[in-house]
Amino acid sequence: MASIFRRFASSSSTGGLVQSIRRVLSEQQTDVPVQVHGWVKSVRVQKRVAFAMIQDGTSTESLQVVFQNPILAHRLTNGAGVRLTGKLCASPGSGQAVELVADTVDVLGECDPATYPIQKQSLTVEYLRDNAHLRTRTSASAAVLRLRDQSQKALSNYFSRHDFTYAHTPIITSLDSEGAGETFRIAPVKPLPSSLGHSSSAQSEEFFSQPAYLTVSSQLHLEALANSLSRVWTLSPCFRAEHSQTSRHLAEFWMLEAEWAFTDDLDDLCQVVEHLIKEVLRMDSPDRRLLWKEGNKQKQELLNTAASDKAWPRITYTEAIQELEKQNAATGQFKFNPQWGKSLSSEHERWLAEDLVRGPVFVTDYPVELKPFYMRLNDDQKTVACFDLLVPFLGELVGGSLREERLHLLEQALDRHSLSRDAYRWYLDLRQFGGVPHGGFGLGFERLISWLSGIENVRECIAMPRWAGRMLL
Amino acid sequence: MASIFRRFASSSSTGGLVQSIRRVLSEQQTDVPVQVHGWVKSVRVQKRVAFAMIQDGTSTESLQVVFQNPILAHRLTNGAGVRLTGKLCASPGSGQAVELVADTVDVLGECDPATYPIQKQSLTVEYLRDNAHLRTRTSASAAVLRLRDQSQKALSNYFSRHDFTYAHTPIITSLDSEGAGETFRIAPVKPLPSSLGHSSSAQSEEFFSQPAYLTVSSQLHLEALANSLSRVWTLSPCFRAEHSQTSRHLAEFWMLEAEWAFTDDLDDLCQVVEHLIKEVLRMDSPDRRLLWKEGNKQKQELLNTAASDKAWPRITYTEAIQELEKQNAATGQFKFNPQWGKSLSSEHERWLAEDLVRGPVFVTDYPVELKPFYMRLNDDQKTVACFDLLVPFLGELVGGSLREERLHLLEQALDRHSLSRDAYRWYLDLRQFGGVPHGGFGLGFERLISWLSGIENVRECIAMPRWAGRMLL
Repeated sequence: MASIFRRFASSSSTGGLVQSIRRVLSEQQTDVPVQVHGWVKSVRVQKRVAFAMIQDGTSTESLQVVFQNPILAHRLTNGAGVRLTGKLCASPGSGQAVELVADTVDVLGECDPATYPIQKQSLTVEYLRDNAHLRTRTSASAAVLRLRDQSQKALSNYFSRHDFTYAHTPIITSLDSEGAGETFRIAPVKPLPSSLGHSSSAQSEEFFSQPAYLTVSSQLHLEALANSLSRVWTLSPCFRAEHSQTSRHLAEFWMLEAEWAFTDDLDDLCQVVEHLIKEVLRMDSPDRRLLWKEGNKQKQELLNTAASDKAWPRITYTEAIQELEKQNAATGQFKFNPQWGKSLSSEHERWLAEDLVRGPVFVTDYPVELKPFYMRLNDDQKTVACFDLLVPFLGELVGGSLREERLHLLEQALDRHSLSRDAYRWYLDLRQFGGVPHGGFGLGFERLISWLSGIENVRECIAMPRWAGRMLL
Repeated sequence: MASIFRRFASSSSTGGLVQSIRRVLSEQQTDVPVQVHGWVKSVRVQKRVAFAMIQDGTSTESLQVVFQNPILAHRLTNGAGVRLTGKLCASPGSGQAVELVADTVDVLGECDPATYPIQKQSLTVEYLRDNAHLRTRTSASAAVLRLRDQSQKALSNYFSRHDFTYAHTPIITSLDSEGAGETFRIAPVKPLPSSLGHSSSAQSEEFFSQPAYLTVSSQLHLEALANSLSRVWTLSPCFRAEHSQTSRHLAEFWMLEAEWAFTDDLDDLCQVVEHLIKEVLRMDSPDRRLLWKEGNKQKQELLNTAASDKAWPRITYTEAIQELEKQNAATGQFKFNPQWGKSLSSEHERWLAEDLVRGPVFVTDYPVELKPFYMRLNDDQKTVACFDLLVPFLGELVGGSLREERLHLLEQALDRHSLSRDAYRWYLDLRQFGGVPHGGFGLGFERLISWLSGIENVRECIAMPRWAGRMLL
């Protein structure tokens, strides 16, 4: 019987995978035969020698290839997929430490330079959005995806070291919004024939026997888990059916959310957020450097300052309003009058971060009327124990709060927001049975990437963006 | 101005977080004052001493607390949230190395033992499903969530070491299924008033200007990224509006998918999958041990064998059918006759893994008619270069294939499946422009957890399960 089972074949020595260009460039093993695979980024054929830059997307840098016989390079075109063999040698050029002197070339995937949508000249942001399936073939777009990966790892390391458990929270939910904006609804699925036991009533047309929505936040679900696992976090897709067309909003975006038990101090909450984000800001990332190459120097300096040991300032909403009023009295610069009890407008948020503080700032303790029902009421009865983290040139990056753990106050808050106690029975149960002081926050992942990279629009901070009216692929 | 900015408060020395019980148990610093937070798992009050087990969900083990003054324990009830201070001491008991001798107790969250839904006696699986918001307060359910976290880390480590980039692929997509089963559709969002520039035509009622669905697989999107980043993976929510009520299906589940370029050998593909999964099987996990405590010993032995260095056998579909036919001729044991060209039924899959191989087995090269359009046609023109990984007591855990990179064959495959070349224009583009041989696979994450833990039903392998007719929270 054993004879019918086949065993390992070709690439078993490398675990089934070819050698990546990242590995070739980092190990720099010269004068041994090497095989590389990748795509042609550029070709330059001269009389007696040819050069090509080859990239496989595993590293920021391309590999320079030298063809001592320029005929070898004749079939190479930008975008073509190739396999090359040769030897790695110290490079006499200044741009790289090593280069590949190639003996053989195989074109694995041809690319017609006349029709290839990703031409070498600079392509507009809009053109690349229209070609979302090919967009990551540009260096910047590929760097963004690697930067997302690196950032996620840094976040994950922080949470791991601090005993947080990663949790997958539901995407389809029965909660229709908590007032967080418009919610996508799942269309009813046609019922099965009644012979299969399904009645034909209106309700049974709902696949889940009740209306189903796409999640706008994992917070309430994470709170359930934090009241048993103590510390949980997730990086989960969230959805808002908003028609707004800004550089900071997507209909589908990724939100990092964390919740933890046994905290009753807003300063502690802010400290966790600050430590977490500084860990990401301090990553060494060649991809980030690539993306900042053409970025705004002033922004970049502010970002470097934010990464320093100096603690990010914290200011109450009430103090922020006072500062804004003073500034407005002196300059009249704001379109919207700052006023206690009103939301901070975008111009207010930016002035606080860019001018007053010149860096990230936690604004805390907003009026209860401005915030969702679940935030913990302060002793003044007028404000809640919450914060928004505002950063220069972006505005709100993180929002968080202590959660109301006192059952009767939470019930009153539901009533005040005209939310049904019945619908939130399970959420009230968390308080009823061993509920302890806890808190958490949400961070827009694409906004973090935008801040980290200097890329203006979050549509360029995700592989395949979706917004009102637009969903390719 | 600086005076308005508040600085760090209370817990700055510990980074804003209290000490976790995992840390207390692992560091075992005896004879120093310590403060712990957690929930009461059990209390035992005697005349001169009281004991309690305290758990905060950060570790598999609970902390034993000794009250030399039993009055201290009088307010403790199962499920109550508490803060304790005292000293850690070597434990004279056999169940633990250290225990906390408590001086003070604060009850932070009371829990009425008369009404608490999570009673100490064994609760049925169905009862716990009905109480999904409290389910992770049981040891087993909390262990499952930590096991998910640990497994995800092991998977992530493998991919990191091999230069894969993690990618977030779209959840909302214009693709309506690729024949992978029923798809959830996003309900149209009401159009804005026409004064805002939206027409009132039927089409504009779609939020994205076209019908939108929930993804059934990230594969096609990952293929686009693999053709620039070379190696990508994701662990993404997937959705199937299936009415089937089995122990292996959820309407919302998490799928690990990976795609990589520059592979043209199915054996290499299988090898990557085998190495990846063995890394997870070999994790040291106290949570897994806890979950296996009451598990089936035979299953567990097979699992241990699967983790050994011995390579998992590979057998073609054609050979598998021959073996099944032989077996059926000898015993007549199968309800469905095995026959070339027909799908393997569940009983066939289980016999192959549980009896023929007694372990995981890759079944490769299925007839082209049984598989989706994108799989690479073999030279025999009758089969495709694909595999299913079958494991004992579970069936299919992973499915993968080389993808058809030859443009004209892919076009023919679309035609054969009555899929529009127009709708898949972008997917064809990937081949048209520098498309190289590539492949990948998908692994059901809840099924992996089920296999790892011995838990029968995938509904217990995810925090908040959704299936036809059922969606709590």
